[in-house]
Amino acid sequence: LRRGYPEVVYGEDKDASQILHILQAMAATGTPLLVTRVHEEKAAQICAAMPDMQYEPKARVLYKKGPISEHAVAQRLPVQVLSAGSSDIPVAEEAAVTAEVLGQKVQRFYDVGVAGLHRLLHLLDELSKAAVYVVVAGMEGALPSVVAGLVKRPVIAVPTSIGYGASFRGLAPLLGMLNSCAPGVAVVNIDNGFGAGYLASMIADMANAWKHEDSAGSGTS
Amino acid sequence: LRRGYPEVVYGEDKDASQILHILQAMAATGTPLLVTRVHEEKAAQICAAMPDMQYEPKARVLYKKGPISEHAVAQRLPVQVLSAGSSDIPVAEEAAVTAEVLGQKVQRFYDVGVAGLHRLLHLLDELSKAAVYVVVAGMEGALPSVVAGLVKRPVIAVPTSIGYGASFRGLAPLLGMLNSCAPGVAVVNIDNGFGAGYLASMIADMANAWKHEDSAGSGTS
Amino acid sequence: LRRGYPEVVYGEDKDASQILHILQAMAATGTPLLVTRVHEEKAAQICAAMPDMQYEPKARVLYKKGPISEHAVAQRLPVQVLSAGSSDIPVAEEAAVTAEVLGQKVQRFYDVGVAGLHRLLHLLDELSKAAVYVVVAGMEGALPSVVAGLVKRPVIAVPTSIGYGASFRGLAPLLGMLNSCAPGVAVVNIDNGFGAGYLASMIADMANAWKHEDSAGSGTS
Amino acid sequence: LRRGYPEVVYGEDKDASQILHILQAMAATGTPLLVTRVHEEKAAQICAAMPDMQYEPKARVLYKKGPISEHAVAQRLPVQVLSAGSSDIPVAEEAAVTAEVLGQKVQRFYDVGVAGLHRLLHLLDELSKAAVYVVVAGMEGALPSVVAGLVKRPVIAVPTSIGYGASFRGLAPLLGMLNSCAPGVAVVNIDNGFGAGYLASMIADMANAWKHEDSAGSGTS
Amino acid sequence: LRRGYPEVVYGEDKDASQILHILQAMAATGTPLLVTRVHEEKAAQICAAMPDMQYEPKARVLYKKGPISEHAVAQRLPVQVLSAGSSDIPVAEEAAVTAEVLGQKVQRFYDVGVAGLHRLLHLLDELSKAAVYVVVAGMEGALPSVVAGLVKRPVIAVPTSIGYGASFRGLAPLLGMLNSCAPGVAVVNIDNGFGAGYLASMIADMANAWKHEDSAGSGTS
Amino acid sequence: LRRGYPEVVYGEDKDASQILHILQAMAATGTPLLVTRVHEEKAAQICAAMPDMQYEPKARVLYKKGPISEHAVAQRLPVQVLSAGSSDIPVAEEAAVTAEVLGQKVQRFYDVGVAGLHRLLHLLDELSKAAVYVVVAGMEGALPSVVAGLVKRPVIAVPTSIGYGASFRGLAPLLGMLNSCAPGVAVVNIDNGFGAGYLASMIADMANAWKHEDSAGSGTS
Amino acid sequence: LRRGYPEVVYGEDKDASQILHILQAMAATGTPLLVTRVHEEKAAQICAAMPDMQYEPKARVLYKKGPISEHAVAQRLPVQVLSAGSSDIPVAEEAAVTAEVLGQKVQRFYDVGVAGLHRLLHLLDELSKAAVYVVVAGMEGALPSVVAGLVKRPVIAVPTSIGYGASFRGLAPLLGMLNSCAPGVAVVNIDNGFGAGYLASMIADMANAWKHEDSAGSGTS
Amino acid sequence: LRRGYPEVVYGEDKDASQILHILQAMAATGTPLLVTRVHEEKAAQICAAMPDMQYEPKARVLYKKGPISEHAVAQRLPVQVLSAGSSDIPVAEEAAVTAEVLGQKVQRFYDVGVAGLHRLLHLLDELSKAAVYVVVAGMEGALPSVVAGLVKRPVIAVPTSIGYGASFRGLAPLLGMLNSCAPGVAVVNIDNGFGAGYLASMIADMANAWKHEDSAGSGTS
Ligand SMILES: Nc1ncnc2c1ncn2[C@@H]1O[C@H](COP(=O)(O)O)[C@@H](O)[C@H]1O
Ligand SMILES: Nc1ncnc2c1ncn2[C@@H]1O[C@H](COP(=O)(O)O)[C@@H](O)[C@H]1O
Ligand SMILES: Nc1ncnc2c1ncn2[C@@H]1O[C@H](COP(=O)(O)O)[C@@H](O)[C@H]1O
Ligand SMILES: Nc1ncnc2c1ncn2[C@@H]1O[C@H](COP(=O)(O)O)[C@@H](O)[C@H]1O
Ligand SMILES: [Mg+2]
Ligand SMILES: [Mg+2]
Ligand SMILES: [Mg+2]
Ligand SMILES: [Mg+2]
Ligand SMILES: [Mg+2]
Ligand SMILES: [Mg+2]
Ligand SMILES: [Mg+2]
Ligand SMILES: [Mg+2]
Repeated sequence: LRRGYPEVVYGEDKDASQILHILQAMAATGTPLLVTRVHEEKAAQICAAMPDMQYEPKARVLYKKGPISEHAVAQRLPVQVLSAGSSDIPVAEEAAVTAEVLGQKVQRFYDVGVAGLHRLLHLLDELSKAAVYVVVAGMEGALPSVVAGLVKRPVIAVPTSIGYGASFRGLAPLLGMLNSCAPGVAVVNIDNGFGAGYLASMIADMANAWKHEDSAGSGTS
Repeated sequence: LRRGYPEVVYGEDKDASQILHILQAMAATGTPLLVTRVHEEKAAQICAAMPDMQYEPKARVLYKKGPISEHAVAQRLPVQVLSAGSSDIPVAEEAAVTAEVLGQKVQRFYDVGVAGLHRLLHLLDELSKAAVYVVVAGMEGALPSVVAGLVKRPVIAVPTSIGYGASFRGLAPLLGMLNSCAPGVAVVNIDNGFGAGYLASMIADMANAWKHEDSAGSGTS
Repeated sequence: LRRGYPEVVYGEDKDASQILHILQAMAATGTPLLVTRVHEEKAAQICAAMPDMQYEPKARVLYKKGPISEHAVAQRLPVQVLSAGSSDIPVAEEAAVTAEVLGQKVQRFYDVGVAGLHRLLHLLDELSKAAVYVVVAGMEGALPSVVAGLVKRPVIAVPTSIGYGASFRGLAPLLGMLNSCAPGVAVVNIDNGFGAGYLASMIADMANAWKHEDSAGSGTS
Repeated sequence: LRRGYPEVVYGEDKDASQILHILQAMAATGTPLLVTRVHEEKAAQICAAMPDMQYEPKARVLYKKGPISEHAVAQRLPVQVLSAGSSDIPVAEEAAVTAEVLGQKVQRFYDVGVAGLHRLLHLLDELSKAAVYVVVAGMEGALPSVVAGLVKRPVIAVPTSIGYGASFRGLAPLLGMLNSCAPGVAVVNIDNGFGAGYLASMIADMANAWKHEDSAGSGTS
Repeated sequence: LRRGYPEVVYGEDKDASQILHILQAMAATGTPLLVTRVHEEKAAQICAAMPDMQYEPKARVLYKKGPISEHAVAQRLPVQVLSAGSSDIPVAEEAAVTAEVLGQKVQRFYDVGVAGLHRLLHLLDELSKAAVYVVVAGMEGALPSVVAGLVKRPVIAVPTSIGYGASFRGLAPLLGMLNSCAPGVAVVNIDNGFGAGYLASMIADMANAWKHEDSAGSGTS
Repeated sequence: LRRGYPEVVYGEDKDASQILHILQAMAATGTPLLVTRVHEEKAAQICAAMPDMQYEPKARVLYKKGPISEHAVAQRLPVQVLSAGSSDIPVAEEAAVTAEVLGQKVQRFYDVGVAGLHRLLHLLDELSKAAVYVVVAGMEGALPSVVAGLVKRPVIAVPTSIGYGASFRGLAPLLGMLNSCAPGVAVVNIDNGFGAGYLASMIADMANAWKHEDSAGSGTS
Repeated sequence: LRRGYPEVVYGEDKDASQILHILQAMAATGTPLLVTRVHEEKAAQICAAMPDMQYEPKARVLYKKGPISEHAVAQRLPVQVLSAGSSDIPVAEEAAVTAEVLGQKVQRFYDVGVAGLHRLLHLLDELSKAAVYVVVAGMEGALPSVVAGLVKRPVIAVPTSIGYGASFRGLAPLLGMLNSCAPGVAVVNIDNGFGAGYLASMIADMANAWKHEDSAGSGTS
Repeated sequence: LRRGYPEVVYGEDKDASQILHILQAMAATGTPLLVTRVHEEKAAQICAAMPDMQYEPKARVLYKKGPISEHAVAQRLPVQVLSAGSSDIPVAEEAAVTAEVLGQKVQRFYDVGVAGLHRLLHLLDELSKAAVYVVVAGMEGALPSVVAGLVKRPVIAVPTSIGYGASFRGLAPLLGMLNSCAPGVAVVNIDNGFGAGYLASMIADMANAWKHEDSAGSGTS
């Protein structure tokens, strides 16, 4: 088990039987299970064989949580996931569900893009409570900069391929986010909700570590 | 004289004597004169020969205004020029001076980028008074979208080549602005303050036309 | 209601029931309604449920106009929409219908590209009457420069993804338009007829403002 | 003061007197001071006028630390800064000095690129002790993936413009890092050592928070 | 027969009857036969007509080996084919099968990417025995550099189009591999397993030449 | 002597003595001589040693014409060279001087870009007399399409690197010209006046062939 | 009728009834007819209604030749069309059929790419007889340079989108051809067989002009 | 000592004293020494301090050969280095000198580009004698394909940044070489003569191994 975290399976190019094969081997070890980029039908086939797996269709994520105390989760400093548009929600959900499977408290704020700034400004109080932010945006990708200018914790920016023309399948928001004029922003691959949720979990684990005994543990796998 | 506006000279690749030659021919006609992209020394040489020319070093613009009544200008709905960073000011000044030479009232709001949103929000009342906005930004180029979400007049966005790395000499803000999620935004070339100031003047002339007799004049040259 | 204009819905990634849901909420407020990028079948489903919606198949736009006096519209300085080729017409229509829904008088001049200049030159008189131009072109995207050289009002250039090979899905006309050698041109995203029609409406409203009482109203939303 | 952190000055396009002007205003507030991208001569001029400023030539950073207890720093979970090649050191130093000015304990491991894997493997024990990693690499940019596969804390990847030809000024390592096959990696702009050091400090502050009273403070500025 | 090697047919754009036509002409000469990029159904049609052809579905390769002694092959210094991920296996198989048809001994080591370095390190002894390496990787494409740092024979790097977003269909690993910081690496086209397997065979033939009489033969065709 | 034409020397990366060495060898054969991309000082050094060489500073071309009858040249169908802007003239001159050295009658029409269409339209009669056109343009590169729509002979389009920002050093006019909507246009490399002048000469030689005895000569060298 | 040549219809985005409508209007004038990019079914529909139209499926071209004397054609200096690979043939055929419809004698030499140079060298005598060459190639696009080095007439190079990976849909051969080291080469758009065939016809008409009375006719339309 | 080969120093970003420091440490071990990308003055400073170092100015390489028997070298199957143009010679020399320092017999054939095919064809007999080819070309980069079609040993292709405009600093020949239609070609970075010479040495060592006892030695370092 790498890093106390589940080995994650990238489901895109694997068929149901390949995924089942991998999951059944892993299930034996009792770790949480996480498969990303799983289409609905594949998920149904797998869940039929492993009924304790759960599927989140918007996020296209298949998972089995580890034995997490809901009460302990509720106490945590949360990961906050924001999306600029409603079309960005599938990517935001991939981040959110990933973080939840990894034991985080997650709060969602969707469709709060910069063209309607008031929606974002109304959230200021809420935003002050997070350990870390995952900010998902397509088109010009301006939201992470604006958020990073308002808060004092790390912002993980996720460009999406939503848009057309000069978006060039996500290149526009990717470049925008890399050039963020607000410090405290780092970027993951286009549409990589999973990577953002995973990294946010690592950071949130540190922010919540003073409540745990394992905070100073050895870093190598 | 095209469009009642001066023929504008692009000074970049011309030497002082070439520019002088052109200006002296045009001066005879009495129109306003405008030369862009003129370095300081070239400007000094030209001004020595034509003392009624003026030079604006930040904007790198050399000009002679037409006979404009300062009073009439002061009454107009202004062109507002905003810049995200202080490094973007030369491009913003090229836009501002261009608009002024073309007879506009110009208001400047610099260093109001999205990483410090409060500076922009403090301007809301001022912003409500413009005919048109020129919004200049490098790096992620998010400012035009944010401004367009706050106002109800046209926004002309100018990407700048300020930045490094994944800015790719202005490609990042250019793509960002073209993908603006707020309607009412159009974009000119990277660093093209002149083009933005010129177009803003055309629009401001229409917004101020009810005070003039020439508003319904023929559109062709 | 932002800017006295309808909130516009981007229909591409939304299914009929999502769009219906949004429209029914907005319909209550009595504003004009505009949904872009709606395919024919989706449109049929929505119109079945909301019979006062209209659909323009070439433009892929679904709309309900506000209470506009046809007579007042006919008096206005028009928005003129030009297309270079006949393949660019869907994008040109998105611009034209958008402007009409926003209350503009619209004139269309299609298939007047630069390879057959005489067609354009025959229009010179007509062109002199517009408040603003939307010029739509794919391939080399030269039409906006040529038009801007002939008229004295703003030109909004719309590159299209029409073409093949080194068009690179609209990159060629996009770059061409950004580098226009004629001042007075600004550019929107590839295939973004909607954005051009919306911005043209904002400009045309100013050009027609001396006939209205609301011309000096506050600019912020 | 944003986020309890100094307002950082980007020195690239500012001359010595502009920077002095800004610093003298800030110095009054007693916060730490940080200016990045300052060339040697400019730094000398500024230090002559403000003798309590310090200059780090490799990192091209000018700074004045806040009142930090060296003892408290020594106790902290460190930020570890790794570089792949020796040519990447200036960028790595910009990250390292930034983190130090922001109060972090920093450990440096330079010239540990993937072509000589044994150098990296010898560090495994050391690597297990960090709160967060800044991994700097040019050329193929493979080091962050390899490091992320060996540790269980966040990796901030910094591509550099070191290299030639198909490096395309840092595009190659930038794309490589964005496509990292190891989760737990996020990326900042090419050559942006400052941004990585700043973000690493934010994360390290959380990892060290259980020793401080301010760990649950409000997140908004 | 060029170079003592079969004329290879690129099957992508040819239909079954075209391929059959070419193969039947070549079969007469008794050379080995190799057709790449053949989909399953096309292969079935061809094998029905030419029952001595064999098809390898993962590699999408159709072939008939020449009269090779299995015993002689087993003695050879092998071509080793490594893949970073399991999604890269089809490309790796195209390389492996190509080399086998050309008479090489091939060893496969799949899913040994840099995020799980231990898997690669366990292979060190095995790796020391190859004549040449074909290293296939998508995403950040780091594996060839790491392998080249561990071995002392040529590495042929094959970028794959596996991945999404900023992989830009294989551009990311292609640029990464071209910028490899380890000498001894050369690169073929994205997904070009065939080209790598062919070149590896040429090199392996030289490494095994001391066992053959033809090693100093004329190089021109 | 290839094709009855001089072997042309590319002067860019060669020093004066290297060029002299080559020219002196060629001078012996009595062919015309042509060296492109020669800076002024290099040219002076060479002309000092070979006084029958001539230098054209705008075109940066050094040459010695063959024994051409000025009278015969004057009778020919000319090559017409057009430039869009005045900054494009050096490239246009490289084309014009190349064609002249190769024995053509050349006519120049400069600064006739599409933003001022009337200048071009006044030339219509003149344009009808050419054998072939070389059309040079930077920025949006629209001139070749417009010219090709007006004439019935071949147009060779030369994009220039004149411009800034989204011109991307000539990429914008290059793509524009490749996507020309008028048939009869082919394109050479950015700033390649030489290549256009050379190809135009080949075509003009055919157009003038009925006056010569060599028109049906063998095509291979 | 532009240039004595048919107005050509681009069939890609038009349906059968639109094309029929255009053709029937043109048929009245008696000119030759040419429609490119027509799929088989569309062609069948059109030919059913206009039985004197002919369809060439490989070239995807629909046409009706003008009244050309086969005997006169046979006497002409031909247009020679070469293709590098067999996959490039559809583009080569579009060029060849276009030139034939425009009255040219056309000779085809296919699958003569540079990897098998002997096939090309065997053609040397044949090649010496052309007026002009259309050279079609995908992949590295080297054939036009090699041909231009062997002949003394103009070469029109056509890059194709054939290939995969780093071909980037024809970008590789496009750039290669633009950088041809042999003078006498100009390039048309990727896959633009039509444009090459049309331009070749214009050139061939000049090469054959001494047999016609119209060679010195007015060039403007 | 990695792979029995010298550790190579990349001299570009290091000053003379840094390089001296590294060399003096290495000199103690008696291995051959190789420093690439060293400008003339730096080289002079280093050679003054270490008189047994040699400098090759065209190749910009500084080296000390190991104790190689000139006689043994002369017997070997050579590495042949070809360049397309004379401007490519510095890169070709970097490859050639690298291979010589690594103990190879090297043969040079320069200025044999595809525009003058006969020069290459005259070499056919010579070419048949190599173990491996390094083929260096800028512009369209066609030479490696042509060479690979003529020989039966591996071709290492080196694109150069020689050229202008659409060469995009070597991108054109890089893409061309990656898309080579002849199998047996692999590519290194733009201008990377060193990498090609090094890899060629590894291959030549295998081709010459039957004369040595170490041919089956362990591959790992
Ligand atoms: N800074 C500028 N950026 C873009 N275009 C400009 C600029 N300055 C002047 N122009 C345009 O360039 C044209 C003049 O070019 P020229 O004839 O070379 O002086 C005019 O039509 C101007 O509209
Ligand atoms: N065709 C279009 N292209 C670009 N933006 C659009 C288009 N149609 C609507 N929009 C914008 O998209 C936003 C609505 O997005 P959504 O909330 O996802 O429906 C509005 O602010 C519109 O201005
Ligand atoms: N998968 C492949 N990728 C690249 N080149 C190939 C492939 N398969 C065959 N080839 C080459 O394509 C050429 C055959 O092309 P063709 O004549 O179109 O069948 C041969 O020279 C092969 O070397
Ligand atoms: N000209 C060159 N191009 C690419 N890599 C090189 C070059 N010269 C040396 N190297 C590699 O760079 C590494 C040395 O880098 P450094 O430690 O910075 O001197 C060695 O592994 C060499 O293989
Ligand atoms: Mg919304
Ligand atoms: Mg600021
Ligand atoms: Mg048309
Ligand atoms: Mg090193
Ligand atoms: Mg794996
Ligand atoms: Mg001009
Ligand atoms: Mg073939
Ligand atoms: Mg030469």
